[in-house]
Order: sequence, then structure tokens, then C-alpha cells
Amino acid sequence: MPSAAASIITLLTDFGLKDGNVGVMKGVILGIAPQARLVDLSHLVGPQDVRQAAWILWRAAPYFPDGTIHLAVVDPGVGTKRRPMAARLGPQLFVGPDNGLVTRLLEGAERLRQPTQFFLLDRPELWLPEVSDVFHGRDIFAPVAAHLANGASLEQAGSPLADPVRLLLPRPAVVPGGVRGVVEHIDHFGNVRTNITREDCSQQTPASLRIAGTQVKGVVRTFGERPPGELIALFGSSGDLIVAVVDGNAASRLGATVGDEVEVQLRPG
Amino acid sequence: MPSAAASIITLLTDFGLKDGNVGVMKGVILGIAPQARLVDLSHLVGPQDVRQAAWILWRAAPYFPDGTIHLAVVDPGVGTKRRPMAARLGPQLFVGPDNGLVTRLLEGAERLRQPTQFFLLDRPELWLPEVSDVFHGRDIFAPVAAHLANGASLEQAGSPLADPVRLLLPRPAVVPGGVRGVVEHIDHFGNVRTNITREDCSQQTPASLRIAGTQVKGVVRTFGERPPGELIALFGSSGDLIVAVVDGNAASRLGATVGDEVEVQLRPG
Amino acid sequence: MPSAAASIITLLTDFGLKDGNVGVMKGVILGIAPQARLVDLSHLVGPQDVRQAAWILWRAAPYFPDGTIHLAVVDPGVGTKRRPMAARLGPQLFVGPDNGLVTRLLEGAERLRQPTQFFLLDRPELWLPEVSDVFHGRDIFAPVAAHLANGASLEQAGSPLADPVRLLLPRPAVVPGGVRGVVEHIDHFGNVRTNITREDCSQQTPASLRIAGTQVKGVVRTFGERPPGELIALFGSSGDLIVAVVDGNAASRLGATVGDEVEVQLRPG
Repeated sequence: MPSAAASIITLLTDFGLKDGNVGVMKGVILGIAPQARLVDLSHLVGPQDVRQAAWILWRAAPYFPDGTIHLAVVDPGVGTKRRPMAARLGPQLFVGPDNGLVTRLLEGAERLRQPTQFFLLDRPELWLPEVSDVFHGRDIFAPVAAHLANGASLEQAGSPLADPVRLLLPRPAVVPGGVRGVVEHIDHFGNVRTNITREDCSQQTPASLRIAGTQVKGVVRTFGERPPGELIALFGSSGDLIVAVVDGNAASRLGATVGDEVEVQLRPG
Repeated sequence: MPSAAASIITLLTDFGLKDGNVGVMKGVILGIAPQARLVDLSHLVGPQDVRQAAWILWRAAPYFPDGTIHLAVVDPGVGTKRRPMAARLGPQLFVGPDNGLVTRLLEGAERLRQPTQFFLLDRPELWLPEVSDVFHGRDIFAPVAAHLANGASLEQAGSPLADPVRLLLPRPAVVPGGVRGVVEHIDHFGNVRTNITREDCSQQTPASLRIAGTQVKGVVRTFGERPPGELIALFGSSGDLIVAVVDGNAASRLGATVGDEVEVQLRPG
Repeated sequence: MPSAAASIITLLTDFGLKDGNVGVMKGVILGIAPQARLVDLSHLVGPQDVRQAAWILWRAAPYFPDGTIHLAVVDPGVGTKRRPMAARLGPQLFVGPDNGLVTRLLEGAERLRQPTQFFLLDRPELWLPEVSDVFHGRDIFAPVAAHLANGASLEQAGSPLADPVRLLLPRPAVVPGGVRGVVEHIDHFGNVRTNITREDCSQQTPASLRIAGTQVKGVVRTFGERPPGELIALFGSSGDLIVAVVDGNAASRLGATVGDEVEVQLRPG
């Protein structure tokens, strides 16, 4: 069911912005699907950091129109036996390596009981004529995304695939008096984003939070409630509990990094 | 008076490029206004640096077609009492927080006696259904910009607002034999850009310039007039007086930073 | 022969991403050619690094549809006697300073016996009304690219130019038992990219490689063939021989930089 909205293609890679490789993928896409709308999600994913890319994709995808094609290429296994994949995850489409990039989107779709489908890309007639061993983003994934934007179906792009790779992500755990989780992402502002969500704290109010040996008291609603320089905790725009410094950099202040343990104390109400 | 050109939306933020938040705003826009043309101005504004963003916006906006919508989100006051705003500044439209981002554009329009209008965004029916306390770029400003791109009027987006916030910017001052100003911006090349303009030096020729304890003799027309490594002064492409090192980095060389005092000696003619 | 594909304009500069200058060029283009498709190649070319830009352009251009206009502005000679130029290089068009940016594209077209044509931009009626001495990207090149996107011919943009500037690039040399070349580029991943190509090693197999005092044994097909942390050599997606560390940064490991000597030992077969 191709629609007008189906012609948006987002791009998410760890390619960086200096070498021109993102541009190369866009050139390939526009050669096949001149009308496609191209939107960059990020090209500054940490090198080979599939988990970070899965997090970025999961936060951004729901804000795109139904039928948007998310082309994600963080691909340490390029040219090996890792499978090239396309997928439907609820209303969103995905094209990229089968290495766990879709894990969080897939979990989200399952939680909402939305349909999911996975396809092994095995139709070389949709790819560039020559396929390198080192740049499938250009040679396989970009052309397939472009053909989908032109109205090709997932079924035309590949064969059913039953067992997509999933990342084993740490889950928040209930502990006496609260919830224990980990730091999931350090953002551009130095905000420390945890894997603990508003739902994990449901029915109760976070009273305080312990991270990297530091206690953060109370949870505020937004940054400007406290003076610059103050360490605060608040729920981010995706519902994730974050630790921030007002007009400052919490990660530097705390020395916090991805994977650090975070413990929230809850109080009823 | 919506026109074809009205469907360009520029984006200016301090969000950085790695987390996907710019992409999220674009997804929201394209969901509402699929035909909008999106152009990034900068997403590397210093965190919460409203003054720097106002400078970038003022330099870039005049080069866009009439009716372009400038969506600017540098928003330390998000979720507090700071007002969400849309504005007309001569031929350009603005959407973003009312925190001074438009100061320079507004001054420019006033100087040219162009019409200006300001509106408090108070029509939640144009916003996303759920509005967070921390990401109004996504929840309020992007959707409003998209509706404007679709032809909605400023009047449909909000109610008149009489007193938009203005930054108190330092002004160049006439001093005996010259003009005294400050460093306004350090650019990507390390060029030191001052708030002194060609107009401030009108009728006279800059003879030399003093900055960070260093004397710069004469003002050249362009970079290639002097050999690599030489410290020069020249008027930039926006008419601002800048200090540069040919094929080098003047800010590092001089240790200059935003706010540093600059004094120009003029001679008649 | 303007076609639908002719309306793609790529942008390649050393402007960086923070000051808004790339946005300014896009505003100028869209004011003249509202339908143009804009694609960024890179804006993180090293300051004034014409050679690096020529390399990026050469790698990316072939993946764009015929008739794509490549607007490249790395322009240390802006405002001096260096000539403003447009060119046809096989199926691709170029607009920018005549300073060697096209060198590699031109060599590629010559190797394939494709037509090439060069034009001195001398029709100010196609430029912005006011031309600064310091930003021809905005004042000359962007408007000319936009007019080409609108269907203007190269002949309408300028007069024939017979002797475009070419960079003097180092060439790989045959040495006893192998080929000697240099490091041409360090990419975002820290991969060390040489100027030695698959063709330079034709008929024979690279047996080992010496760079920065380190021996690299054997050439693999792709990254995932070896364990993380291992130093490998392989042919990149453009056929260039590269030295990499699996999931790591070879340039840091080796202390390699552009211009370093590289020697490949070949064995028959």
C-alpha cells in the first residue's frame, strides 16, 4: 500500500559527515526514486554502535508519517554472513543490516500489537549492478529503499525471514523502594538518559535518584524550574528519566557513561 | 498571503547532529506539510546561546525567498512561562520561543521600515496532541511552522503579542579617532567577527585595529591579497569587520573570544 | 539537454556546519530554482583543502544521476584573479572556483573518453546583484548552479575556458616486487585510504603492505573477516587500497597522516 508518505526515506548511519558517503547513498536513491524526500536522522552514531542507533531510531521513527522508510546503516558485519533485511514494524518500514538495529522499534510494535514482517533481501535485480564487500549501504540498502519509495512491496524486495536478530538490552528492575536501571545514552547537551521510563515509575513518584555516587533529590518538570548549574532529574520528551544540569553538562559533571547503574527511589502517590 | 515560496522552512537549533532530534522535528513537519522544503541553517549553536542564534538567523534570513518560515529553537526556558511565538519580520516569518532570537531580524526590519507583527501561539489545535514540558520544538513549533507552510496565517496560529523579548546587544561606540566594538562571533575558520560594520566606518577608512592586545594594520579587500599566515582585517560578506589569518585561524592565534573589545582607528577618505 | 535529473544540486564546501553559510547558499538557490533538489556531500572539508575536496567529489559524483550539478566551494583564492568556472565532466556538471577541484573528475572523464568542457563564468546577470569579495559561493556559484538547474546551458553561463587548473597529484609508482603510493585520506572511521587502486595491483595479489614503519600481512575482503582490533588491509568501495583496524581506528594506531608513504608487495596470481 504505497502512499504519498511512503516516499520519505530517513537515513541513520555511523558514517560521519566529512567523507561524502551519506551523499553517495542519496545520489543512488535519487537516481532510482527522484521524488523521494530524504531526511537525516543522524550520521554521528558511534562507530559500529548498533545499540545507540537502535535507540535513536526508536525515538525518532514514531514522529514520521506512516509508510516512512528508515534506511539505517550501522554495519560492522558488512560483507560477512549477516543478512541484509527489510521490515515492517507497525506503520514504519526499515531497510538495513539484520543486526539488531530494529530491536527497540520491534518491541514497540509488539507492545502495541502492531503487525511486524521481516524479509531477507535476496533480489539482486533491485541492487546496484556491482556490489562491493564493504559498502552495502550504497550497493544494496539505498537502492532497495529507493525501490520501496517507488512503490515496490517488501515482498518484491525479499523472502520472508523468521528470526531477525535482537539486541539483548538491559531492562530496568524493581528493587526494594524503587527501580534500578542503566544509563542508555549521553546526548549532545550532556544530558544523561536512562532506560527507566515514566511507566516504570507508574503509580509512584520518583523521590530521588542515585547515579555515579551522586544523589539527585526530587524530579522536576522542566529545566527552567531550577537555577543554572543545578543538578536535576526529569522525564525527557520520550518519557525516559534523565539527569541534567540546568544550562550545563551533566555527563561531564558526574563522569557518567553509557552502562552506568542508576537507582531511583520511589514514594507512593 | 501564502505563496510557493512560503513552503520553505529553515531550521536553526542548538540540538547538535547526533541524537536525531532535528530529524524528529522534520518528521513532524512532513506529516503535516508533505511539500515543505526543509533547509538546515545550523544545529551547532552553542547550548542555550540565544545571542549566537540571533546572529546566525540575521545573516542568513535575507538570502531566502520572501515568505520563508524560520523555525528557530534555542530554548533554555522551554516549559516555563516564556511565551511561544510566531512573527512576521519584513518578508520573513519566524516561529520559536519568545526569548530574543528575533532581535537582530527585528532591528533590520525596523531599519528598513518593514512591517513587523508578533503572535502568541495559543491555538493548541495546531500543535501535537500531547505537549511535553521539554521539547516544544517538536510539539508546538514544528507543527505551527508546518501549518504556516500549508497556508495558515499568523492570525490563525495565535493572538497578537505586543512586547516581544529583545536581547540587549552591545553597540559599537564612536571614540576619538575611531569606533569601539566587541567580538560577536568566532566562525568555523577561526575568523573573529566583530559587531562593527562597514556603515559604522562610513565616510572613513579603517587604518588599523586593536584586538586582544594585538595591532592589525590596514584593511584588505580579500584573503588572497596577503600571504598565508598573515593577520589581516577585512569586511566580511555581511559587512561586518572581521579579523582573520590567511589560510589560518585568527581566534587561536589571538586567543580572542566573544565579547572581547575591538577598537578601529579610522582615517578620513 | 536539461532533464529532470538536472535539477539535483550537490554542495561541497569547507564552511563547516555551525555558521549558517551553507544555508545561505541554499536560500539563494531556492530563490532562483525552487524545484532544485539539494544534497550535501560534505561541509567538513579541511579549511582550504582543495585536494581533499577533489577526492570527495571524485568518489561521490559517479553515483549521482546524469546531469547532476556539483556546486563545490573550497576557495582560498576568492576575490583574487582565480577564475570562477562551470564545467561538464562526462555526464556531471560542476560549478565553483577554477583551482583544481575538478582534477580527479576530469581525469576520470578523460580515462573513459567522455566529453569535457570548461567555461569562465562571466555573465554577471546570472549572479546576485551585489558580489562581495569574500563569498562567491553565495554571490556567484550558487546563483549560477540554480540557473543551470532551471535549464540554462553552460554556454549561457560563461565563455569557453581552455586551460582549467589541475592539481599535481602524486601517482603510485611501480617498484621492484610491488607498488609505492601515499596516504590520500583519513576517513571518519580512521581508515587510512591510499592512492593505490585495485587496477594498480592488477594481475597480481597484494601479499603485504608497509606503512608508517608497520607491516600489514595479507589483504582481506571485508572487515568482519578478522577479529576486532586486528590491523588489516582491504580494497575500499572505490577500489582504493585501505588500511583499517577492525572496529577500531587505524590512523591513530599507526600515527598515519595524509602524504605518508605506503608500499605494497605483490605476488603473482
